[in-house]
Amino acid sequence: MKNIDVCLTPDLLDLYPVEGKIVVIVDILRATSCMTAAFANEVKEIIPVSTVEECKALQQKGYLAAAERNGEKVEGFDFGNSPFSYMTETVKEKSIAMTTTNGTVAINKSKTADQVIIGSFLNKQAIIGYLVSQNKDVLVLCAGWKGRVNLEDTLFAGAVVDALQNEFECHHDSAMMAQVLYQNAGEDRLKFLSNCSHFKRLNRLNIQKDIDFCLMEDDKYDVIPVLKGGKLVALS
Amino acid sequence: MKNIDVCLTPDLLDLYPVEGKIVVIVDILRATSCMTAAFANEVKEIIPVSTVEECKALQQKGYLAAAERNGEKVEGFDFGNSPFSYMTETVKEKSIAMTTTNGTVAINKSKTADQVIIGSFLNKQAIIGYLVSQNKDVLVLCAGWKGRVNLEDTLFAGAVVDALQNEFECHHDSAMMAQVLYQNAGEDRLKFLSNCSHFKRLNRLNIQKDIDFCLMEDDKYDVIPVLKGGKLVALS
Repeated sequence: MKNIDVCLTPDLLDLYPVEGKIVVIVDILRATSCMTAAFANEVKEIIPVSTVEECKALQQKGYLAAAERNGEKVEGFDFGNSPFSYMTETVKEKSIAMTTTNGTVAINKSKTADQVIIGSFLNKQAIIGYLVSQNKDVLVLCAGWKGRVNLEDTLFAGAVVDALQNEFECHHDSAMMAQVLYQNAGEDRLKFLSNCSHFKRLNRLNIQKDIDFCLMEDDKYDVIPVLKGGKLVALS
Repeated sequence: MKNIDVCLTPDLLDLYPVEGKIVVIVDILRATSCMTAAFANEVKEIIPVSTVEECKALQQKGYLAAAERNGEKVEGFDFGNSPFSYMTETVKEKSIAMTTTNGTVAINKSKTADQVIIGSFLNKQAIIGYLVSQNKDVLVLCAGWKGRVNLEDTLFAGAVVDALQNEFECHHDSAMMAQVLYQNAGEDRLKFLSNCSHFKRLNRLNIQKDIDFCLMEDDKYDVIPVLKGGKLVALS
């Protein structure tokens, strides 16, 4: 039977071999939600880079460029980290270079996996269906917050574990913790997360609309971004 | 207001400054449960060491010595990691050198804290009362399993957070995750943990009696082991 596990932060990834596995990268607020929205709006490719400098260099070569640090758009870039900014004709068939505080770091740490795909509540059902269809072990990698665990990514990991529990073996503590949290949160994730530090911090940035969208619009898009040759493209 | 946070594994401790704080070390199955039982039975001191070799060297100097690796007693030592082996006159007023897979490593990583104390369900109420009485921030450090998070240590962390929620500020995601898990587990922790990997592994070692004791005998002992000059002694 296939196996599923959850790594709660990239800072623990050394303990989780990714070789031969499908790694699902999760950064609900907001990197992987943005990526999902961008591919739903027919972006050609997204190049995830770890530093603002690399992102700037690609912008100077003609790419559209997105940079977020500490929840805010970095000055001089075309996009920050709001999914709504990708829901426009502007991105169609374009190449975007992207760096975010946590999400792109997680992607670049997972490159030795068999496959790296991008998950969010927006494409949850697409992700789940794909994982069921493949004959591979799965690791859900939560991007967390600067190395620490966070609730919203763990909730999504729990949703995936919960959906796959009859198809996959799961006897790892972190995966079970995520599943219990997801089951406990129930329908109203906004309420469940209302005491969460990251959530409070993001609220101060005035992005309630983003948060609502990233947390509550399950299965809106039937698209799976996948890493190929260092670039994210739509899984065909 | 004082602040409480939870570090889910020693592998993430670099992200949690311990300076000026009281750190509560948690290794429910079974290092910190053993330490609590030993001090309840009037051991004089426990010297936590990180390696089997250091422990052997102290044994050769005349200490009683306890070594556990992968859940089993290491050959040639006086004790393994069962709390019952410390519930005897043999330990009274003795010095014991101890090394365990996870617990003693966590202790030795926390040495720069203001104070390091040892928590388990066995002395939960003593720990909670002490933390309330002190004017210091608190970090609960779960020993985990070889760097990974585990359910039983997280449950205990959640119990502490839950008890202190009116006395301490707590807006960190890992602390909230622990609290939700604790609340969700309810009275029957054995049942809650029955699917847990570590739990299953320990069950294979035939230590059901230890597990029952470490998980279910809340507040049995009114003793707090505290680190002083590299040695654990009873808090006076």
